Amino acid sequence: MKLSDEEINRRLTEAPGWRYVNGCLEREFKFADFKTAFAFMTRVAEVAERLNHHPDWSNVYNRVTIRLNTHEVGGLSELDFELAKLIDQSV
Amino acid sequence: MKLSDEEINRRLTEAPGWRYVNGCLEREFKFADFKTAFAFMTRVAEVAERLNHHPDWSNVYNRVTIRLNTHEVGGLSELDFELAKLIDQSV
Repeated sequence: MKLSDEEINRRLTEAPGWRYVNGCLEREFKFADFKTAFAFMTRVAEVAERLNHHPDWSNVYNRVTIRLNTHEVGGLSELDFELAKLIDQSV
Repeated sequence: MKLSDEEINRRLTEAPGWRYVNGCLEREFKFADFKTAFAFMTRVAEVAERLNHHPDWSNVYNRVTIRLNTHEVGGLSELDFELAKLIDQSV
């Protein structure tokens, strides 16, 4: 179910570091080097596969930018915030 | 050492699928699903770490877009074509 802007803003207060940008939940992560950045991505990939909910993400050396949204609802759903939380726990 | 445009165009003929876009060597790869796309990324990450030359790349579900360049020379170097070849062998 698509979350309302009001609901999104409420939930953002419980997801520090994440921003609501262009209809996506977005966060950038920075690591010591490529190796640790990719190790993080590997953990996130496992979580995403488990939830069957996948990020739009990019990596350049030690930086990983993650964007989440739910294509099916044309916006953000509960699942995006659930994945965001699990991603934070994967750092 | 920075490769000349002439040299880049010659080498592109030996790197089918790769394009020269905005100063980068770029290619998009498509897989059956997220799992196989990320397995490919894991193999590429190992190669990149071995060469100590890292891609600018993004992934959305089954698609992986890879951009290569050599920051130090402000363009493309031998290493970009070397990595491109190893990436192709990682599919």
